[in-house]
Amino acid sequence: MPQQFYTGQWDIRLRPRARGFHLVTGEVLGGTDGFGGIAAGICQVFLLHTSASLTLNENSDPDVRTDMETIFNRIVPEGSPDYVHTFEGSDDMPAHAKSSILGSTVSFPVRNGRPLLGTWQGIYLCEHRDRGGSRHLCVTVVGTL
Amino acid sequence: MPQQFYTGQWDIRLRPRARGFHLVTGEVLGGTDGFGGIAAGICQVFLLHTSASLTLNENSDPDVRTDMETIFNRIVPEGSPDYVHTFEGSDDMPAHAKSSILGSTVSFPVRNGRPLLGTWQGIYLCEHRDRGGSRHLCVTVVGTL
Amino acid sequence: MPQQFYTGQWDIRLRPRARGFHLVTGEVLGGTDGFGGIAAGICQVFLLHTSASLTLNENSDPDVRTDMETIFNRIVPEGSPDYVHTFEGSDDMPAHAKSSILGSTVSFPVRNGRPLLGTWQGIYLCEHRDRGGSRHLCVTVVGTL
Repeated sequence: MPQQFYTGQWDIRLRPRARGFHLVTGEVLGGTDGFGGIAAGICQVFLLHTSASLTLNENSDPDVRTDMETIFNRIVPEGSPDYVHTFEGSDDMPAHAKSSILGSTVSFPVRNGRPLLGTWQGIYLCEHRDRGGSRHLCVTVVGTL
Repeated sequence: MPQQFYTGQWDIRLRPRARGFHLVTGEVLGGTDGFGGIAAGICQVFLLHTSASLTLNENSDPDVRTDMETIFNRIVPEGSPDYVHTFEGSDDMPAHAKSSILGSTVSFPVRNGRPLLGTWQGIYLCEHRDRGGSRHLCVTVVGTL
Repeated sequence: MPQQFYTGQWDIRLRPRARGFHLVTGEVLGGTDGFGGIAAGICQVFLLHTSASLTLNENSDPDVRTDMETIFNRIVPEGSPDYVHTFEGSDDMPAHAKSSILGSTVSFPVRNGRPLLGTWQGIYLCEHRDRGGSRHLCVTVVGTL
């Protein structure tokens, strides 16, 4: 018997966050409504911006998010004299680079209508601008009922 | 009524580029023919190489691409005396590392036969070799008609 | 005629590895059983951990894996005095950062029941902990028969 296919797609608007790394698992997955009851499939969470990013990381100790900000500020320092793209502020070019290092997509499996994440995995919004404003995400799920 | 499923898959050959970051959105998506009319789904763009990479970033100011090259050359410097893999040239090992930092895949949602990208998001080919040659990509789209 | 859809999903347990970069293509793809005979689709390999990661890179010269460890230890140094999250050992916070830089997912196309990878692309398990233990992966494939 052929498997029955299902695609679901939702838009999410995240409220403005301070620069830094934020745990947003509940906000992102709360509105996905059991992924339409998909038994097995793939979920893609996509961020429609180039100065923020998404990643999966430790969902328990907030100190990890603090240290992530420290580490990425060191990897891509602000105010380097050889940057050419500076007219949007000193936080802008580093934000673009961080966005490509971390990526604008997280994807993970879906099983029995639920995200299949590790015990310690949460979804981070990585806000690289000083004033990034609201962020637009799109969640897509494809799989078999 | 069950949703009707569609998969499309295309090969793309990009002409050789100079080392650096290049906006290739039009070349990559131009041949995808409306994604077969998918109403909602996922597009995966995949690069079959280990010394170049794909990322999404700012599609407007070319200075961003210049600064990306500056930044990634600093993150993974060339000619470090402790590199062991050196027989393919001093640009080769840094190219492998950059390729893993940036990744060989970009994926994004498809809606109503079109890529759902942010206003400022474009697809970059990141060429990390001094003479990388032509690059082979594969675009796959899955979703519901 | 509508295309016939197929989803497959498998769990994989990788045995404990030493800290470093390890080629695991055979172990990861060996159990996937021809991807159910998918003619065209997407494969997602997902790691359910926050202190290790997955990436695609050069599958031939082991020196590349040695240099990757050197390079990533330099990008995210251990024992920095400004790290706050230190109670799980000096290798833990760098492991989280490396995991987000490299990512917990690799995805690539499937064609005619086989992974469509470049000649030199292999799947790396990147073990960022000194004693990371066994690692849990999930492979999902979606596409058309």
